[in-house]
Amino acid sequence: MEYDVENFTKSLVEAGLIVPTRVPGTFGRNAVFEDVLARFDAAVMDLAKNDNPEFYVFPPTIDRTIIEKTAYLDSFPNLAGTVFSFFGNEKEAKQLSAKVNAGEKWSDTQGMTEVCLNPAACYPIYPTMTGTLPEKGRLITMFQWVYRHEPSNEPTRMQSFRVREFVKAGVPDEVLAWRDMWAKRGEELLQSLGLPAKMDVAADPFFGRAGKMLQAGQIDQKLKFEVLIPVVSLEKPTACCSFNYHLEKFGSVFGIRTPNDQAAHTACLGFGLERCVFALFKQHGVDPKKWPENVRKRLWG
Amino acid sequence: MEYDVENFTKSLVEAGLIVPTRVPGTFGRNAVFEDVLARFDAAVMDLAKNDNPEFYVFPPTIDRTIIEKTAYLDSFPNLAGTVFSFFGNEKEAKQLSAKVNAGEKWSDTQGMTEVCLNPAACYPIYPTMTGTLPEKGRLITMFQWVYRHEPSNEPTRMQSFRVREFVKAGVPDEVLAWRDMWAKRGEELLQSLGLPAKMDVAADPFFGRAGKMLQAGQIDQKLKFEVLIPVVSLEKPTACCSFNYHLEKFGSVFGIRTPNDQAAHTACLGFGLERCVFALFKQHGVDPKKWPENVRKRLWG
Repeated sequence: MEYDVENFTKSLVEAGLIVPTRVPGTFGRNAVFEDVLARFDAAVMDLAKNDNPEFYVFPPTIDRTIIEKTAYLDSFPNLAGTVFSFFGNEKEAKQLSAKVNAGEKWSDTQGMTEVCLNPAACYPIYPTMTGTLPEKGRLITMFQWVYRHEPSNEPTRMQSFRVREFVKAGVPDEVLAWRDMWAKRGEELLQSLGLPAKMDVAADPFFGRAGKMLQAGQIDQKLKFEVLIPVVSLEKPTACCSFNYHLEKFGSVFGIRTPNDQAAHTACLGFGLERCVFALFKQHGVDPKKWPENVRKRLWG
Repeated sequence: MEYDVENFTKSLVEAGLIVPTRVPGTFGRNAVFEDVLARFDAAVMDLAKNDNPEFYVFPPTIDRTIIEKTAYLDSFPNLAGTVFSFFGNEKEAKQLSAKVNAGEKWSDTQGMTEVCLNPAACYPIYPTMTGTLPEKGRLITMFQWVYRHEPSNEPTRMQSFRVREFVKAGVPDEVLAWRDMWAKRGEELLQSLGLPAKMDVAADPFFGRAGKMLQAGQIDQKLKFEVLIPVVSLEKPTACCSFNYHLEKFGSVFGIRTPNDQAAHTACLGFGLERCVFALFKQHGVDPKKWPENVRKRLWG
């Protein structure tokens, strides 16, 4: 198989699956794309059907203090998206209009709001968990739009994308056992769809030189795993599913306690839904009607 | 029926339907809420099943120049959300961290990006329609997260919410006939769900004193209709479905032409999905299992 970003993108656009826009990473998705995404998401949820997770949807904009309290801005200042708006009076509104209509910069008319874009699917749930967890901890699933400020013409690197997320909070043993169970489930699901998926230890793209040390520590402690699939490159396969063990970080910041009054440990895992869809289109072609029988059966039943 | 915002909100929170967050208008939605939302959306789509609309999903963040070109900032500067991020070097990143961790303002570390939050569900589609329309125009449906900077503790006034949107582009007669057909469909659907829905001429909340004149013009020309349902107030019912006729505005700005080379006319209509869900909870109670048989049948089949 060839891995040529330009040709892959071209084939997606020509098939109508994605609708290009002026700004990289903000394309539209068509009905066929959305159907595959929904079916894939349903296949993931089917794996969890006996787990009885609580389900929540939080909006794409979340409380800004969440990223302030969790050191997100220390690690990924360049990826965070903060929401600004106009707080002025009528005279200032006229100045804003004049600047916009003259094609001038108008960023100085904007002030920071109380919300930022959700940078990671699990973030909004932690502040809602403050207090003591039930005996067996909590298991949550979410379906969220996530934002990363990394404009790119490479289709799998989006500014806004959806994640099917699972979060487990509890005592360390439970949380780790749960993560390991899902690592197997995730890899198996993707392989069963004919995708050359491989699990690997991973590290986050921490900002700057100090980031290298943080990455080394993360790899050392095996806090992050990813299921990787070659989509636009064989050498740099795409992370389609990500597993993160946070130790007691969120438990400490948000006062989430275990029944024996320790800071709860948390882990999360997320399927990057658009990336999984792109992996399927890359592997099986842009027309789902022509996909292998076993893949169609798994997704459309 | 009583219309008491505080008690209504309390009943939603106690039933677990919404999960409060620190910032007004950014609450989480639970599984029951999401199920009703999905079923209501399916009921809307069922009305359109013989119309064969194209379907697209665009992300919550869109090309900033769309709101610059369409005079959105002249009319609603206070409602627009623009996305900022950090563009600095390592030294500046340390300053950002220091400010955040000291609890100081850090808005001056942020610069405007190329994206803003989508302020109206139909906006992202217009720039993709540049060129000549097919003979019968185009009919599109979308499922989108929309942002408005209007923090409020009133649950139906959200910062982020979802809209099931329909857009028609073509010659004026077609567009108007299509809008009128949907006005009937929308009102009938909501009434069939036991909701006291009423159609009325409406106006947008244009900013400032000049806004009053714009509102008067909009009402004069009957460019905007809304289906209103009392949810938190009898005197100020909630707009649950909105119909907008744009004349040739978007056709002109984005070069969308009819086959006889006129600027295309466009109209859109959107169901505010969370608002429709809230209207159902208000009317029939917080437990969908106890809703009237005919309502349950229409939604769950």
